[in-house]
Amino acid sequence: MKRLLPPLTFTLLLGLATFAHAADWAPARSNVPGAQYPRLDAEGRGIFQIKAPDATAVQVNLPQGSYPLTKGADGVWSVTTPPIEPGFHYYAFRVDGVMVFDSGSQAFFGASRHGSGIEVPEPGVDFYTIKDVPHGDLRAKWYFSKVTNSWRRLFVYTPPGYDNQPDQRFPALYLQHGGGEDETGWANQGRTDIILDNLIAAGRARPMLVVIANGNLPREPGVTALYSREGMTGFARELLENIVPFIEANFRVQPDAKHRALAGLSMGGGQSFFVGLANTDTFSAVGAFSTGLFGGIRPPGGAEPASFDAEAAIPGLLSAPQTFNAALDPFYLSVGEQDPRLDATRKIVADFRARGLEVEFASFPGGHEWQVWRKSLHDFVPRLFRSE
Amino acid sequence: MKRLLPPLTFTLLLGLATFAHAADWAPARSNVPGAQYPRLDAEGRGIFQIKAPDATAVQVNLPQGSYPLTKGADGVWSVTTPPIEPGFHYYAFRVDGVMVFDSGSQAFFGASRHGSGIEVPEPGVDFYTIKDVPHGDLRAKWYFSKVTNSWRRLFVYTPPGYDNQPDQRFPALYLQHGGGEDETGWANQGRTDIILDNLIAAGRARPMLVVIANGNLPREPGVTALYSREGMTGFARELLENIVPFIEANFRVQPDAKHRALAGLSMGGGQSFFVGLANTDTFSAVGAFSTGLFGGIRPPGGAEPASFDAEAAIPGLLSAPQTFNAALDPFYLSVGEQDPRLDATRKIVADFRARGLEVEFASFPGGHEWQVWRKSLHDFVPRLFRSE
Repeated sequence: MKRLLPPLTFTLLLGLATFAHAADWAPARSNVPGAQYPRLDAEGRGIFQIKAPDATAVQVNLPQGSYPLTKGADGVWSVTTPPIEPGFHYYAFRVDGVMVFDSGSQAFFGASRHGSGIEVPEPGVDFYTIKDVPHGDLRAKWYFSKVTNSWRRLFVYTPPGYDNQPDQRFPALYLQHGGGEDETGWANQGRTDIILDNLIAAGRARPMLVVIANGNLPREPGVTALYSREGMTGFARELLENIVPFIEANFRVQPDAKHRALAGLSMGGGQSFFVGLANTDTFSAVGAFSTGLFGGIRPPGGAEPASFDAEAAIPGLLSAPQTFNAALDPFYLSVGEQDPRLDATRKIVADFRARGLEVEFASFPGGHEWQVWRKSLHDFVPRLFRSE
Repeated sequence: MKRLLPPLTFTLLLGLATFAHAADWAPARSNVPGAQYPRLDAEGRGIFQIKAPDATAVQVNLPQGSYPLTKGADGVWSVTTPPIEPGFHYYAFRVDGVMVFDSGSQAFFGASRHGSGIEVPEPGVDFYTIKDVPHGDLRAKWYFSKVTNSWRRLFVYTPPGYDNQPDQRFPALYLQHGGGEDETGWANQGRTDIILDNLIAAGRARPMLVVIANGNLPREPGVTALYSREGMTGFARELLENIVPFIEANFRVQPDAKHRALAGLSMGGGQSFFVGLANTDTFSAVGAFSTGLFGGIRPPGGAEPASFDAEAAIPGLLSAPQTFNAALDPFYLSVGEQDPRLDATRKIVADFRARGLEVEFASFPGGHEWQVWRKSLHDFVPRLFRSE
């Protein structure tokens, strides 16, 4: 029996629907405690708010696009966005042309500044969620750099049980951030400690140390191209002459190439490629996540750089691949499936394999972003130190 | 022989003077790498800048006052402030009524948000400057709170040599932040690790652990006053039932009252006073830096609270002071000499002493601010665990 609902029933149902809808929204996990905005619903839609009674135009800039906010009677501007991609994203408001960070968000260092970030849960993905498993430490350490002539900070993840096994030594992964970021990238946005805790607890990774250093180093005078052997000299010296010796003097690691790995994202991927492949006497595993070395990105208004000459970058890489195959386990590349670097990365993987160079490759949904890098780390770490 | 300078010479001299003046300015130490503003000169004057081409009014809000910026032809607003008090200060811009953080500054958690901060050097003061001495670790650890039913982060400072002496146990100081701050306060703004490193290297403090936890905890339903025994229940449970047992299960500390101290600043000072003095079976040293418990602050527009009843707060404190004198070494209070809490704190110290309660007291130049709290920590730590 079908009949029209009387107006009051309809209003009640609408009220219930609105209530159910409202109850579905929750503050983002990346908010500071107590901050109600930004909020997300189960589909990842976001509500952003900022008080700006005198402003004439406000928008929120997310990596996927910008959304104009509308002004309420109370001077609070607000917008509900379409679903935001799962993962972690930097964002900012623009208020009458001024970049404004959201006081509701924690601050994250990216784009060379401490800005806002939003964590959008990915349904069914919990490898970077803290769980009731043994937890390692994330230790801040100061070391003196002879390259910069200053004290610099790095983080060291030590695995659960490190303190209780004073006679035990562990392998070490050196893990580098991207351009505009620093050592806090893998520590905060990357959730390295949680990813390692979960992998180790599941028996999927060997207990290891992860060294998370600041990869921003000056270039030699006259060198302009970062992505060249010359451009990497500062980083290479910092890593090989300062960071690795400091770690090996202060932590119980296994001080040989077999037990050292080097990986990084974007700029750090380029650093890992150049410095790792050129120093297989120091590192036996190299990972480059989302590096732009191979092409696919172009400077604004400029042309895409000439194709990457792997043999020129790393002599022998193509002409004597068996040397690298024997030295590296693994040589690993990854990239986001919506990253403009995808095609160039896939092509070089095919080229490498055609020349007999063994390379392990993975791609993950997402652009040039932390969700791809978390998944890359989670995929890469179980491949390390597996021969024992 | 005296003569007037010709106009060209005068212009040249003026130019040299300007150059010398400009050379005197340097980016604040609290800036993100590469950020040229804010800048400070040797007298602590600051230059603040922000680009806001469409704004009509911009000011910078420092604790000592607000300063209007003036607009340049390029849309960049700028101001040179009078000298800023030495130490660390939170600040923000206000652009047409909107609070805007400075993308040139690192972010610091205070006032319940991640905002800008500026570090103004204090001439002749270097106890919180990193030096070429052995450095401990600052370790981030996750523990599960049965009070909040969630994972919470704390920091643990372990002294130099902790890893190399696996049979050695150490005393522990539990150190709490102020209202609107969290566990990052003592770790970042407070420079706890550097202060301890320097004191230990100078032989002025025993090697000890410092546990820096998040003291923001919910109050029981119906309890509104934080600064009461009832208001402290959540913190007391967190500390005594969760944090201390977690530390003692995971670190080599000496698990008795004689080797535990509790201190904090402002809100954390109130927590230390209530929970420390009520639990002398757990703690043998208590420090309260700049607590407002004793009076001197009043809610905006309201009256100063009634005078503090120490005997009601801690039964026996005035009527049986010898119990506390025997249990505590030290009971310590400190406050800033420009803090409105100064007179009330001095008065209660006099009252305590008149009643036979031993209290160590220090005051330092400055208001309700981190420079006073750094100096308090630096002054307090050498008084700990000194009987051995």
